Amino acid sequence: MLIVADENIPLLDSFFGDFGEIRQVSGRTMTASDVRDADVVLVRSVTRVGPELLEGSRVRFVGTATIGTDHVDRDWLEQKGIRFSAAPGCNANSVAEYVLGVLSLHAERRALEDWTRLSVGIVGVGNVGGELAHKLERLGFEVRLCDPPRAEREEDGDQEFVSLDEALQCDVITLHTPLTRDQAHATYHLVGERQLASLTEDQLLINAGRGEVIDTGALRARLAQANAPVVALDVWEREPRIDPELVDQVWLATPHIAGYSLEGKVQGTEMIYQALSGYLGLPVRKKTGQFLPEPALSKVSFTSAADEDDAIRISLRACYDPRQDDARLRVAMRGSAEERAAAFDRLRRDYPVRRECSSLKVQLKGTSKSLQDSFRAIGFKLKI
Amino acid sequence: MLIVADENIPLLDSFFGDFGEIRQVSGRTMTASDVRDADVVLVRSVTRVGPELLEGSRVRFVGTATIGTDHVDRDWLEQKGIRFSAAPGCNANSVAEYVLGVLSLHAERRALEDWTRLSVGIVGVGNVGGELAHKLERLGFEVRLCDPPRAEREEDGDQEFVSLDEALQCDVITLHTPLTRDQAHATYHLVGERQLASLTEDQLLINAGRGEVIDTGALRARLAQANAPVVALDVWEREPRIDPELVDQVWLATPHIAGYSLEGKVQGTEMIYQALSGYLGLPVRKKTGQFLPEPALSKVSFTSAADEDDAIRISLRACYDPRQDDARLRVAMRGSAEERAAAFDRLRRDYPVRRECSSLKVQLKGTSKSLQDSFRAIGFKLKI
Ligand SMILES: NC(=O)c1ccc[n+]([C@@H]2O[C@H](COP(=O)([O-])OP(=O)(O)OC[C@H]3O[C@@H](n4cnc5c(N)ncnc54)[C@H](O)[C@@H]3O)[C@@H](O)[C@H]2O)c1
Ligand SMILES: NC(=O)c1ccc[n+]([C@@H]2O[C@H](COP(=O)([O-])OP(=O)(O)OC[C@H]3O[C@@H](n4cnc5c(N)ncnc54)[C@H](O)[C@@H]3O)[C@@H](O)[C@H]2O)c1
Repeated sequence: MLIVADENIPLLDSFFGDFGEIRQVSGRTMTASDVRDADVVLVRSVTRVGPELLEGSRVRFVGTATIGTDHVDRDWLEQKGIRFSAAPGCNANSVAEYVLGVLSLHAERRALEDWTRLSVGIVGVGNVGGELAHKLERLGFEVRLCDPPRAEREEDGDQEFVSLDEALQCDVITLHTPLTRDQAHATYHLVGERQLASLTEDQLLINAGRGEVIDTGALRARLAQANAPVVALDVWEREPRIDPELVDQVWLATPHIAGYSLEGKVQGTEMIYQALSGYLGLPVRKKTGQFLPEPALSKVSFTSAADEDDAIRISLRACYDPRQDDARLRVAMRGSAEERAAAFDRLRRDYPVRRECSSLKVQLKGTSKSLQDSFRAIGFKLKI
Repeated sequence: MLIVADENIPLLDSFFGDFGEIRQVSGRTMTASDVRDADVVLVRSVTRVGPELLEGSRVRFVGTATIGTDHVDRDWLEQKGIRFSAAPGCNANSVAEYVLGVLSLHAERRALEDWTRLSVGIVGVGNVGGELAHKLERLGFEVRLCDPPRAEREEDGDQEFVSLDEALQCDVITLHTPLTRDQAHATYHLVGERQLASLTEDQLLINAGRGEVIDTGALRARLAQANAPVVALDVWEREPRIDPELVDQVWLATPHIAGYSLEGKVQGTEMIYQALSGYLGLPVRKKTGQFLPEPALSKVSFTSAADEDDAIRISLRACYDPRQDDARLRVAMRGSAEERAAAFDRLRRDYPVRRECSSLKVQLKGTSKSLQDSFRAIGFKLKI
């Protein structure tokens, strides 16, 4: 069996080595002739998958190691009987940790002793929003969920949902919706002039969903007014040609990397490995955990002198501090429009290895039960 | 023997318990009647020491657990044959670590991979500046020293000194001079309009010496112009009535706490304990190390996957991140002039326990010799 795969999918050999020959090619330049003899094609979001790539090939299975499928002509694949599989939710934990990092920074800037005093409105409660809600609730935050499509589908369920306007009253509003246009509850410019007008300088607005969910023009205008909210953006309209003046105006600016933990990337591989195993009727023998390299920082130890908020802050930052990505993006915004766009892409392509909290052993000697629970809720590996 | 002491001097009982009775009083309200029967008086900078306090008492020894002695009428003490001792340099390491923290933040903001590429001009090379120079040189920074009084005294020495103008050409300029007015090389408004005009936005100016060494009016004007330097201030003109608009203009603003590590404070006690022991002809049996409590964060472990700059950044920040103090000061700048002054004082009085790098065990498994040397140079406790 021949597997043709984007060379940037991590751990290809580890996961797929037993299935047959693997031919690694550049995802951006993958052509029909690359995949003509392939049985399986594995891509990332940079490869367009449809008739131009696959017509005339013998490909039976296409996997994308990404949550998005915009680059894949799914109808055509289905019509041709080509099995398709994506990796929904593979990086949900990475994004949830990004948001926790942002919350912790925000609480510090506000000189809040207890970050769980912040109420958090989550807009879009799918894989990412759901994972985030779960963590925040375990930590003791007041969380409000806004997801009209789910609210409709789960009308009789136990979960309570609020409207967007109610979510906009929280101390923190964090957006995790997909980009949709011509359908009920379309998210294109969901947060526009009216919504932004209702926010105050005591509130924090985070977007780690899709850039177009906020109306950039309206946001720029709002940020130029008094009493403007604090804004943290990981996603932007017109990436990679993002607005450098908006970067200047927002508090925290990162280049669409919230989901870029190593764990998140490798789970993308694992999920298509699982799907291919299922398709081939083979047992699932391999797991991400086996292949993850040793993290740079392996352990931190706290004593009974540790204050809960300090200990969490220190551990979160030691794993990942979004301000590093913020600094890199701001530096990249010098230069011409061409250079800026190239720099935005480069920051994503050459992203350094970032590990999730699960990679860090936290030793807590003689600390309180509540501190231990909080560390567990975030996802650290605990040693008591 | 009766010792009357400011209750805010840490570890009084531990160090002085064997000498006799200790009576702890508020340093701010210490009166002549408090000290009438005392043999020894131990103060901090909030107590004025002179005839009003001591005339008519039987006090033979006065110690101040501070580096400054402006609050003490030393001539009068000498005239009366009262032995006096201060604690010069007790918090030099604390300030040096503060500056390292600021440098590491600055390098991150500039997206510099290697912070030692910054050249550093140290103005005032006494206890603090000397300690800082020592650490920076060991780390491999290019360091230029500016200290005209020392340059004159040590004309035949090995140490090379530069002029202020030369120091002002470094990437980073950090001020560690005392405040002097009517003498050669007076430091009052040493950095004024002309000096500030020569700085550019690629440079960082730090003041952790005395606020009056920079001309606030000139600095405010310079910061309103184009191509202004990045500024980090720990000390201010007219403390605690500092200029809130200057706080707004500078990058990093902290409330004169660079020297406020627990180690620094306790070493102040240790130094007057040593002096009193000497005066009494008693052996010096006690050391700071014996009495320091367990730190909240006791250990971090890195693996061979650790990148040198990341590992240092993570460890420094885990010990102390100046942005927390910056956030608290900015929040404190809301309110009336009275409230702001009170808040500035309160931030200093109720300062949280801050530990120096020596309190943190750093485990480096399979890391490079150069990484180990850097950790040692900063002052971390190494476990290899
Ligand atoms: N920044 C990053 O690095 C990063 C990483 C992962 C995902 N994402 C983005 O985050 C978004 C969410 O990802 P996911 O994996 O959770 O997707 P998902 O499909 O699992 O969840 C999306 C949720 O949004 C809800 N939704 C749709 N329209 C809505 C509306 N108008 N108001 C409120 N909720 C609405 C849906 O009902 C669904 O529950 C996607 O756009 C994805 O591209 C970004
Ligand atoms: N921010 C804080 O928390 C903090 C903590 C400790 C010390 N300090 C301050 O830092 C300053 C230095 O403290 P130190 O313990 O190193 O004092 P120090 O007396 O040991 O050293 C001061 C040095 O400055 C030099 N100097 C004097 N005039 C100068 C000039 N015009 N140009 C350049 N150098 C000049 C002196 O020759 C001396 O070497 C003091 O003002 C002290 O109050 C601040």
